[in-house]
Amino acid sequence: MKIGMIGLGKMGLNLAKNLNDHEIEVYGYDIDQTIKGKVEESGIQFISSVDELLHQLEGETKTVWMMLPAGEITETTFTRLLSKLNKGDRIIDGGNAHFEDSKRRGELCGKQGIHFFDVGTSGGIAGARNGACMMVGGNKEAFKEIEYIFRKINVDKGYLYTGPTGSGHYLKMIHNGVEYGMMQAIGEGFNLLHHSEYSYDLEKVATVWNHGSVIRSWLMELMGEAFEKGNIDEIEGIIQSSGEGKWTVEEALRLQVPTPVISQALMVRFMSLDQEKYGEKLVSALRQGFGGHTVIEKRQPIES
Amino acid sequence: MKIGMIGLGKMGLNLAKNLNDHEIEVYGYDIDQTIKGKVEESGIQFISSVDELLHQLEGETKTVWMMLPAGEITETTFTRLLSKLNKGDRIIDGGNAHFEDSKRRGELCGKQGIHFFDVGTSGGIAGARNGACMMVGGNKEAFKEIEYIFRKINVDKGYLYTGPTGSGHYLKMIHNGVEYGMMQAIGEGFNLLHHSEYSYDLEKVATVWNHGSVIRSWLMELMGEAFEKGNIDEIEGIIQSSGEGKWTVEEALRLQVPTPVISQALMVRFMSLDQEKYGEKLVSALRQGFGGHTVIEKRQPIES
Amino acid sequence: MKIGMIGLGKMGLNLAKNLNDHEIEVYGYDIDQTIKGKVEESGIQFISSVDELLHQLEGETKTVWMMLPAGEITETTFTRLLSKLNKGDRIIDGGNAHFEDSKRRGELCGKQGIHFFDVGTSGGIAGARNGACMMVGGNKEAFKEIEYIFRKINVDKGYLYTGPTGSGHYLKMIHNGVEYGMMQAIGEGFNLLHHSEYSYDLEKVATVWNHGSVIRSWLMELMGEAFEKGNIDEIEGIIQSSGEGKWTVEEALRLQVPTPVISQALMVRFMSLDQEKYGEKLVSALRQGFGGHTVIEKRQPIES
Amino acid sequence: MKIGMIGLGKMGLNLAKNLNDHEIEVYGYDIDQTIKGKVEESGIQFISSVDELLHQLEGETKTVWMMLPAGEITETTFTRLLSKLNKGDRIIDGGNAHFEDSKRRGELCGKQGIHFFDVGTSGGIAGARNGACMMVGGNKEAFKEIEYIFRKINVDKGYLYTGPTGSGHYLKMIHNGVEYGMMQAIGEGFNLLHHSEYSYDLEKVATVWNHGSVIRSWLMELMGEAFEKGNIDEIEGIIQSSGEGKWTVEEALRLQVPTPVISQALMVRFMSLDQEKYGEKLVSALRQGFGGHTVIEKRQPIES
Repeated sequence: MKIGMIGLGKMGLNLAKNLNDHEIEVYGYDIDQTIKGKVEESGIQFISSVDELLHQLEGETKTVWMMLPAGEITETTFTRLLSKLNKGDRIIDGGNAHFEDSKRRGELCGKQGIHFFDVGTSGGIAGARNGACMMVGGNKEAFKEIEYIFRKINVDKGYLYTGPTGSGHYLKMIHNGVEYGMMQAIGEGFNLLHHSEYSYDLEKVATVWNHGSVIRSWLMELMGEAFEKGNIDEIEGIIQSSGEGKWTVEEALRLQVPTPVISQALMVRFMSLDQEKYGEKLVSALRQGFGGHTVIEKRQPIES
Repeated sequence: MKIGMIGLGKMGLNLAKNLNDHEIEVYGYDIDQTIKGKVEESGIQFISSVDELLHQLEGETKTVWMMLPAGEITETTFTRLLSKLNKGDRIIDGGNAHFEDSKRRGELCGKQGIHFFDVGTSGGIAGARNGACMMVGGNKEAFKEIEYIFRKINVDKGYLYTGPTGSGHYLKMIHNGVEYGMMQAIGEGFNLLHHSEYSYDLEKVATVWNHGSVIRSWLMELMGEAFEKGNIDEIEGIIQSSGEGKWTVEEALRLQVPTPVISQALMVRFMSLDQEKYGEKLVSALRQGFGGHTVIEKRQPIES
Repeated sequence: MKIGMIGLGKMGLNLAKNLNDHEIEVYGYDIDQTIKGKVEESGIQFISSVDELLHQLEGETKTVWMMLPAGEITETTFTRLLSKLNKGDRIIDGGNAHFEDSKRRGELCGKQGIHFFDVGTSGGIAGARNGACMMVGGNKEAFKEIEYIFRKINVDKGYLYTGPTGSGHYLKMIHNGVEYGMMQAIGEGFNLLHHSEYSYDLEKVATVWNHGSVIRSWLMELMGEAFEKGNIDEIEGIIQSSGEGKWTVEEALRLQVPTPVISQALMVRFMSLDQEKYGEKLVSALRQGFGGHTVIEKRQPIES
Repeated sequence: MKIGMIGLGKMGLNLAKNLNDHEIEVYGYDIDQTIKGKVEESGIQFISSVDELLHQLEGETKTVWMMLPAGEITETTFTRLLSKLNKGDRIIDGGNAHFEDSKRRGELCGKQGIHFFDVGTSGGIAGARNGACMMVGGNKEAFKEIEYIFRKINVDKGYLYTGPTGSGHYLKMIHNGVEYGMMQAIGEGFNLLHHSEYSYDLEKVATVWNHGSVIRSWLMELMGEAFEKGNIDEIEGIIQSSGEGKWTVEEALRLQVPTPVISQALMVRFMSLDQEKYGEKLVSALRQGFGGHTVIEKRQPIES
């Protein structure tokens, strides 16, 4: 079995190594040619163009795995692959595409007899390297032909065939929404401890909470590792997003399904991005308007 | 009728003038003796001690109006008055005391035959001066004796006898909770306009929204005035609180009554006070932990 | 001046009467022919087809006002008008269309030299009848030709030219988002009073809060009227939405602008629609899973 | 070593068995004498009164472990023990008391030379039986004398000495706050899947999400077990609370530390308890007030 991997970033390269470990021959391509050396050191063959990559896969049903940022680059690459692949070939999108895009791409592939799989990938970099968690949408029969790949590169019980095209990325989207909520809950809890009257050793707290407690989880383990690393104060209090949390809330709006906690976790991220604080200035201005409240003073205790 | 006004800050002084306009003789006291000149210019007699103030009220049933910040200074003043006043005298607390404190104070007064009124005062400085809104808790019969004062200094229909002691401050507390939610909703709306693709003149928007629309309100009028003033950018994006919003949420917790929006309006204020952003740093650290996501970059667009 | 009004529902018919009061000749059409009698009693001519309506407007520049539910019926009607109107004619959409739809319609009109105005209308039924609040997007020069109409049918200062096509409906969308937040804050406040230890007369509370207080507003006036009506208990605790609040949150997501309160007000509506409570069942099941907590008992006090 | 266990409910009995497994002699007491048989079958000696229990512990330093609901019963039992124990004896409160109560109890004990430990216990029933997670506040030297007990009955790395009295229950309180947020996030995610256009097998989703994904956690494992059990639809959509989540938010208010997600998770629970929906009725009444919106119809799609 050969696989062409397009996109050799943090996730793609580690996945390539993971595949390689399991006797799958990986040909890798990345738009950034400067990483050639690093890739080859990993034992992955670096191919310098998509055409050449496809050429390397000749001789059997071609399987191309895209591991690219969602959006334009995924679209461009997909379109190109669509024009080059043949009936029976496979495109696996392991990135974080929007499920509606994946549905559309699945339909376009279907018209040409190409098999499209939308694969939500979880487990982070470590998972990509050593055993990930994958949610696979696409044609069921076609999936069965490559199921063994997913069995190899994921942890035990760590993959699921989720249904028709779109369902894999949809499930990953919701997974990330849940992740936003869980992360924010953890952040709030430790922030409370940080401000409490007790002098907790937060690293030890994360450890004990991760051993036997109701909230033990991989995120708690990572929280412990972050405290161990000891650089929290060097991190800026700004939380980026890669899109799936936002999509989860958009989907909640579309379905009219309440997601009060996931929405607020997202809002916290937006607030953290907002350096101007125009909304807060307006509320302050209103307070000044009716009460002559001072608007420039810093934190003061609430009398109670 | 004579009234002794203790506390001649923004609210107290204007209320004193308002009472004065309505042929009520006001004797004013404030811990800050430097404001004597300003007070006297307003036609209010400035008395230099509480004892002297009480002396001035001799000869009839004494009525003392406290217009002080909630907390220690109200407690101290109250305790002192309690020890000096006689059966039949009146203490009016027009400040923002916690209703439980007011209940307790009412009971203490009751034991000595002193009438205690907890008066929630709304309408801001302008209202205090020209016609406010007051919610009065206390003994009903005792209230009737001084009801004419409330009729004079409030706008038409602008006062309400609310029930037993505590009910006035309770109602004002909830009023402020509602205010937090309304202010935050307005702030969010204009912030969206500020970031939108259109170049709205926000002052004109506030004006049109205040004329005939569903959301016309005094807060919208104040919003328009703030834009007219034109100093929004000079205001820091930090929203102080004076306590009642927090108490509203505490009461919601006590009663197990959901207040998702009022709570969240309060959380926004807390977030605006939080310069350290420790919780956000933790979430950022988690993202780095599993995904190797960069943690220091500033705002970037979400791909979609 | 003649205007053809398409859509004679609660808003359209009252607007037609309002226009009629101001010496504008209104020809009305509605898909529901059974309301003919009611319309004619109002002094509005009921026309039985769109073609006939346009025929009635012959002889001068035609002005057609659509007052229809957003979505398919607006689209169908718009498309039909577009095919029948001529250069220089006007389409006014006074409904709650999505601003992106209005932008698209404005462009389509522009290609044919037809003037399109997207008019956000606030003030409810009473406003439509006696003086509304309107936010008008469209070509500025074209707007000036019909500005006098908006001056007549709105309250003083109650209309605003908001900028290019789309900006009128955009502003109305955000207006409704703010409205959601304000309404929810009011609902939460009165709900707290309802559950409090005091026996407030909520109608009187709404009255006093609407006279002189910081939160005086038309919504508070309406709240008082609702209590006066006395049928709160007959209303089901389900809050419908007509779309703009949802669109506001979608826009906030698109712009990455935080709207914690408006979002939460929307989530409350979604929760009120959700009779199945599947999410709550799951959380209950989790509690049972780790703690053997009973899952079927009704409300019990929290020990504290 | 002997321990007297007071409270043999779900947690207490399992903890007693766990202690018993580790060669600690447990004497159990419960107010409910009918469970005597069940307790004795577990190999735990059932003692019929507190006095008798203390009598059984004679001959060495007495150690009494309370495993009782927070509130009155804990207070009564504590007071009784305080009056019966001697200098050097130990009281362990393994329940969910409020940390302020524990601080107070610790001080009372301190005056008599009794050692008080506030032990937050996590891990649910299964943990109590086979290896829990405990956070222990109290005097450090005194703790060291009984540390071996915690080593035995908890999972490896599953206990932490947290600092002075109060710090154990404080940490457990915040733990539960985080738990509320995580549970709600999980509930929202699966609820979205439940309403999605795909037909996911939710049990399989929980399984795959618990193997290799970023959100793998014990709660996800429990979610899978709940789906396996297959009785979700028999559960009422009402989420009880035992207090710590509420206390977490109260503490956040006290410290002015933002907890937007934990607060909303709590609000969802309050909303689930609220069968009257008075707040929602009010918002519905407002909508009717300005827009004549129908207030009784059930769910309808939002046009978009």
